[in-house]
Amino acid sequence: MTQSTPRAHRLAEIVAKLGGELVGSPDIEIRGMATLESAEPGDLAFVASAKYLEQLNGTRASAVILARAQGGATRLPRILCDDPYVYYARAAQLLSPVERPSAGIHPQAVIEAGAQVASSASVGPFCHVGRGARLGERVVLGAGCAIGEDAQLDEDARLGPSVTVYPRCVIGKRTLIHAGAVVGADGFGLAPQAGRWIKIPQTGRVVIGDDVEVGANTTIDRGALDDTVIEDGVKLDNQIQIGHNVRIGAHTAIAACAGIAGSTRIGKHCAIGGAARIMGHIEIADRVTVTATSFVTKSIRTAGTYTAVLPAEPGREWARNLANLRGLDRLSKRVRELETGSKSKTKKRKR
Amino acid sequence: MTQSTPRAHRLAEIVAKLGGELVGSPDIEIRGMATLESAEPGDLAFVASAKYLEQLNGTRASAVILARAQGGATRLPRILCDDPYVYYARAAQLLSPVERPSAGIHPQAVIEAGAQVASSASVGPFCHVGRGARLGERVVLGAGCAIGEDAQLDEDARLGPSVTVYPRCVIGKRTLIHAGAVVGADGFGLAPQAGRWIKIPQTGRVVIGDDVEVGANTTIDRGALDDTVIEDGVKLDNQIQIGHNVRIGAHTAIAACAGIAGSTRIGKHCAIGGAARIMGHIEIADRVTVTATSFVTKSIRTAGTYTAVLPAEPGREWARNLANLRGLDRLSKRVRELETGSKSKTKKRKR
Amino acid sequence: MTQSTPRAHRLAEIVAKLGGELVGSPDIEIRGMATLESAEPGDLAFVASAKYLEQLNGTRASAVILARAQGGATRLPRILCDDPYVYYARAAQLLSPVERPSAGIHPQAVIEAGAQVASSASVGPFCHVGRGARLGERVVLGAGCAIGEDAQLDEDARLGPSVTVYPRCVIGKRTLIHAGAVVGADGFGLAPQAGRWIKIPQTGRVVIGDDVEVGANTTIDRGALDDTVIEDGVKLDNQIQIGHNVRIGAHTAIAACAGIAGSTRIGKHCAIGGAARIMGHIEIADRVTVTATSFVTKSIRTAGTYTAVLPAEPGREWARNLANLRGLDRLSKRVRELETGSKSKTKKRKR
Repeated sequence: MTQSTPRAHRLAEIVAKLGGELVGSPDIEIRGMATLESAEPGDLAFVASAKYLEQLNGTRASAVILARAQGGATRLPRILCDDPYVYYARAAQLLSPVERPSAGIHPQAVIEAGAQVASSASVGPFCHVGRGARLGERVVLGAGCAIGEDAQLDEDARLGPSVTVYPRCVIGKRTLIHAGAVVGADGFGLAPQAGRWIKIPQTGRVVIGDDVEVGANTTIDRGALDDTVIEDGVKLDNQIQIGHNVRIGAHTAIAACAGIAGSTRIGKHCAIGGAARIMGHIEIADRVTVTATSFVTKSIRTAGTYTAVLPAEPGREWARNLANLRGLDRLSKRVRELETGSKSKTKKRKR
Repeated sequence: MTQSTPRAHRLAEIVAKLGGELVGSPDIEIRGMATLESAEPGDLAFVASAKYLEQLNGTRASAVILARAQGGATRLPRILCDDPYVYYARAAQLLSPVERPSAGIHPQAVIEAGAQVASSASVGPFCHVGRGARLGERVVLGAGCAIGEDAQLDEDARLGPSVTVYPRCVIGKRTLIHAGAVVGADGFGLAPQAGRWIKIPQTGRVVIGDDVEVGANTTIDRGALDDTVIEDGVKLDNQIQIGHNVRIGAHTAIAACAGIAGSTRIGKHCAIGGAARIMGHIEIADRVTVTATSFVTKSIRTAGTYTAVLPAEPGREWARNLANLRGLDRLSKRVRELETGSKSKTKKRKR
Repeated sequence: MTQSTPRAHRLAEIVAKLGGELVGSPDIEIRGMATLESAEPGDLAFVASAKYLEQLNGTRASAVILARAQGGATRLPRILCDDPYVYYARAAQLLSPVERPSAGIHPQAVIEAGAQVASSASVGPFCHVGRGARLGERVVLGAGCAIGEDAQLDEDARLGPSVTVYPRCVIGKRTLIHAGAVVGADGFGLAPQAGRWIKIPQTGRVVIGDDVEVGANTTIDRGALDDTVIEDGVKLDNQIQIGHNVRIGAHTAIAACAGIAGSTRIGKHCAIGGAARIMGHIEIADRVTVTATSFVTKSIRTAGTYTAVLPAEPGREWARNLANLRGLDRLSKRVRELETGSKSKTKKRKR
């Protein structure tokens, strides 16, 4: 479920697989990726931005990944490419491939009658797979997962330990869910009557697409009647809360601790910052960025960046800001008096 | 633990059980609830608010629930009632009743000596029930729950998978706790001494009343000395944090990601919005509403709505707001100068 | 794993072990700690602050802990000391010592080949300990923990139920981790390419020092290349999110629901309030306090208190604040016009 011990590759092999222009000996052996600062001989490092160029001097890396325009910044063996950060991602995938546990159902897992588990799937100890659930080819369940009745995990889906998938929910291909995440618990559906809350059965599902990532302890509620939908390629960080009947558009990324209230629709290719909050029952257009900690209270129709960030300041400065904010009514009144005062003076002059 | 496949009911049966006035054939068979938009033949839909009335035109629902005043808005078979949203909740409960797993202790659960499990209770696989714990009639534990020593779950309490109840905590009747919730972990009790933190044993309990709902991955800390108390009928959404020695009054509802710091008391019938934060050691009166994301820093003595929301804006507009806020000191000074200037002028005139 | 039933101690024994000056009979038997308000005979209470002194009148406690200067405030048997709150912590530890489960591996735990478990360690049911993992002396795993391959838990580390420690992570001595916490899930590392996200393997570890506490459902991500580091004595409350490659300095305490974004370094002896947010890639000096809910957006070089708190207000007052904030541009313009107006008048006079 995690990266295996890196396997050594010659620089020539890396370039043969990932492209880029090699400057230096093709036979240098790379055993892993590292930052410029912590690299040891045998490591491949990278320069993702010009501000790190000066770290090239002290690095002990055996080779570096560089943007083509910066090819002259070092005499180290190097791979020149269009996007060093993407190249780093690809090289790291090559050097530290995901290690899958061997196929098979652990003898201490419980598979209920009528569940289908592909022979290439791997089910860890203490997993419970409910009646009618289907686990596709090469699906991996970490220890202690609970898969509800009639849930469906498509091929190559991987779950960390202690993940819960409630009944009838669907997890797409190659989707990765980290430990403690909960998919498909009841949405917060309550009808008020005479000072009490009447529970509304949540009969929709959660449907998660392909190539999605769901962070540790993130929760995605099932729909009240219709489904909650996470489209293909969406990336959710840790401790995110997705309310019932939300739809997250394809390839949108949401950072940790964000919360999306019920029935909201977020477009494709959006970027939602950490701890951002989005009100329920609104719509966010494609390619919208919401900055960390901001609270979106109404629909956003146009791509762009939206924010309401109050940066922390030394206590005394903030106290003054707050006092000023609260004194605005009085300040406004004083300006009005000044305006009226000068007006009346003007009037007097006119007379 | 979740809603079963809906069981078909004739309209006449529904009205016989739930009340309301039936207009149309009593023999129409209803197989489930749906929204007006996604309803198929066989579905019962509802109009919770006048703004959805126009969706009546296109709906394929076999019948709809309507407020009495709106009975003329469609020619579809319909149930007229006082509160269509409450009726929807009741009808959904009728059509999709909670499905309980069969009674009994799974052979792969561990029940420690001295624990009492009612014969009608259902204990899932991989549950651990500690010494002296008591599980009442019809209690349901999902897979992988950990129930600490001397904990008590009253009749009809239901826990989703991977719920932890720490020792000596009490869960009331019919209370429903979703996956990953943690009841009774240590409160954050630390005494500072010479730059280190000394742990304060947390010897109180968590006592949860009847008919409470606790969302997925919500955490409720045990008291330091006295108990943390969640009164009857409280509804807690996902990922809420309740600090030690908090008391939440009956029938208060708290939306996802809210946090209540230690020793705070919240009244009855309050509504706390998503991601709202409430400071420790304060008191909130009954029937207080706190809007989503707001931070309550001092006690609230009077019912009403309290808020401090900054809605996100396009980046440029927000930057201007922030610059204005920070420029207030100077603006205030300029107004003072204008006032002094005009005053001195006035004085001169008076002379 | 939790506090045992308190063991009775005579006041003389307590003072012999913890110091302080005893006034009153040394033979009074103390069975537990309590608050002044809820104490019963047999309980030891404490006055942590002068504002609780008046509660001394009604208390039923058998003895109280008091600051030396307040020794005359009651005639009850009492222990006088320098810091009653610290004394309370120590006395509670004495009266309610941590109860460790008996050593041994539960027959329903799975220990993979090559894992090393000290004979004094206690492994609960449904735990999975991966290949090459090492559990030191007296380590305690609650039910349902998952310990990844080659992870290391040093002596006296204790984990609540359903804790996940991903492969190769390190947990220091006496460190306590509450239920549902996730240590070492993948950091949120993504490289954007052509509108898609490419996953960056997260090959660093999480390294947690000695005497750390990690709250329930808190998540600490593993590093991308280098490690995420939690130094000795750090105290993390519930539902905290620590991003990849963060470093938290020794003896820093962080309250619930806080979030620290990736690659940020927090100094030693800091206090981060509940739901505070700290931006990624910045540095916070030693002894910095960040108030609850504040968002730190840039590095802080100087010890002190930093904040940006907007206290919730009655809805109408807040609406006026917000309108004022948004009207500042216009107000500013009006002040400018007043200034120009008076200036032009002044000029006229000069002519």
